Amino acid sequence: VIIGDLTERELVARIQDQLPPPPPWMLVGIGDDAAIVEPERNRLEVLTVDALVEGIHFDRSFTPPSAIGHRALAVNLSDLAAMGASPRLALVSLALPPALPCSDFDEMIAGLARLAAEHRMHVAGGNLTRSPGPLMLDITVAGTVKRRQALTRAGARAGDELYVSGTIGAAAAGLLALRERTGSAETTECVARFLYPTPRVRLGTLLGRTRAATACVDLSDGLADGVRQIGASSGVGAELDGAAVPIDPAARALFRSHGVNVDEAMTRGDDYELLFTVRPRSGSRLKAARRHGGVGLTRIGVCTASRDFVIQDSNANCRRPLPAGYTHFR
Amino acid sequence: VIIGDLTERELVARIQDQLPPPPPWMLVGIGDDAAIVEPERNRLEVLTVDALVEGIHFDRSFTPPSAIGHRALAVNLSDLAAMGASPRLALVSLALPPALPCSDFDEMIAGLARLAAEHRMHVAGGNLTRSPGPLMLDITVAGTVKRRQALTRAGARAGDELYVSGTIGAAAAGLLALRERTGSAETTECVARFLYPTPRVRLGTLLGRTRAATACVDLSDGLADGVRQIGASSGVGAELDGAAVPIDPAARALFRSHGVNVDEAMTRGDDYELLFTVRPRSGSRLKAARRHGGVGLTRIGVCTASRDFVIQDSNANCRRPLPAGYTHFR
Repeated sequence: VIIGDLTERELVARIQDQLPPPPPWMLVGIGDDAAIVEPERNRLEVLTVDALVEGIHFDRSFTPPSAIGHRALAVNLSDLAAMGASPRLALVSLALPPALPCSDFDEMIAGLARLAAEHRMHVAGGNLTRSPGPLMLDITVAGTVKRRQALTRAGARAGDELYVSGTIGAAAAGLLALRERTGSAETTECVARFLYPTPRVRLGTLLGRTRAATACVDLSDGLADGVRQIGASSGVGAELDGAAVPIDPAARALFRSHGVNVDEAMTRGDDYELLFTVRPRSGSRLKAARRHGGVGLTRIGVCTASRDFVIQDSNANCRRPLPAGYTHFR
Repeated sequence: VIIGDLTERELVARIQDQLPPPPPWMLVGIGDDAAIVEPERNRLEVLTVDALVEGIHFDRSFTPPSAIGHRALAVNLSDLAAMGASPRLALVSLALPPALPCSDFDEMIAGLARLAAEHRMHVAGGNLTRSPGPLMLDITVAGTVKRRQALTRAGARAGDELYVSGTIGAAAAGLLALRERTGSAETTECVARFLYPTPRVRLGTLLGRTRAATACVDLSDGLADGVRQIGASSGVGAELDGAAVPIDPAARALFRSHGVNVDEAMTRGDDYELLFTVRPRSGSRLKAARRHGGVGLTRIGVCTASRDFVIQDSNANCRRPLPAGYTHFR
């Protein structure tokens, strides 16, 4: 059975089969012209949208449907995490090639529904349309945050210390391995990091609640881009300690074996870690985030009054410009 | 200059050039990981998303870019109108073929920005990505409504009278004329109705505020579908007076001259009128909507306890089933 055999109503029913019952604050959910929800008291609303397009963001020949659904939601949750917000609901807009097998559709929805359930968020509605070519998922997510706990890219000052969560480069290495179909024990974890990224929602909300972070961004477009984003919005530069940057060891090995410059761990995207800044000598504020954030934190450098972005490689005793970030169009 | 010559940042700047400054309630707008907005006090939130996909919903060879931008927002505003909600903000997700001329991009954004300004709503954020094929616009709109003024599809009872705003079939006839490249004085208005639909936001909010309507739906998928949607959600059937259905005269002529059954005015989509129900003998409640709604209202039938959907053609003295609605997939 393929998508083209079903009506829109049948497809909507297949989605609803995989969703939990709507919560009391969702007064009108899927099935009307629009959804109606009660806002959460004393909270600001945080909204973001992100698209995954076949042939640009994923290749169906090596990406399982459940990973497509998972990633489409995860990239949005990562954006909320970077604002310190808790996810609440999603709107799911899908453009479906008629030849897509229904079993792939169901698995894709399962991947999405699983991640939504993990974060106790609900699908409030969406849109289904045929696609004349690529499969596309466009997801809008709404979350909430208390006024004084919101994180932006704009709060860093010179002297603030730069931290990153987890390790970087693994997703890019995983994609490389998938593309070249090179399987090994080492690649397995990198591949999983690419296919099923973990948005750092718990860490983000903790950084906001404890007011440990002065600025925050997610690394969807890579570490180099993230550093420049915080710098541009906050009006600072940055000096990174090259030896401190937590490049994933398996990714490092994978890059080397493929003849790829290890710097690409910093410039390729698809890491869904958080990069954030902390006032100097306030490292103790990170205690709760370290203990309950669910992921390691590494100090990788400092914000500077000079607007330059540099890496100091203490090992190699060399100072060089931070590579440019990933750009989508050019 | 084409899209592929520019960076994402340059494209975002081109969009921002066409937007008004953000309102005070938009605490973080375009340019961070997500937008942050203050919810409106004592209001429920209404959310909807709709996609326009090249090759499915529009054909670039005969649709001007400004109409593409206008329509992508208008279809969402029409959904809000059907809930009785006032639009507040939009998130704009675009998948752009690299060969798209930048002048087309600017015109498309202009069409969208113009309609947004008319409704005093603001773009809070969005997403830009390359497309490997079709141009796609996926727009999420958020609005607000007072708790007791929200309209759904589910409030109609047997005996309620069915009303429709404006005339139907003009957009479908306009699309026909565009496809066949048949231009005449009569087609001009139909073509405009297809390219630049007017979402009935003022009417929808008035129907909610005055509590004149018991159920409401927009006619994006045609009148026949709309009647069935209200019927299914409310648990009623409907009997339409065929002679009363306000088929646009120019559309009727155009269908005839193209050998198309005039019933297709009811089954083709793209009318962005409202269909709603009113308690019997409460027609006086419609006074404000008639006076200030900006569009004519026509009584076209009645809801019935029997779950059938029929048309009574008093002229022809014949009773027949309501044609089936438009389906997206099959």
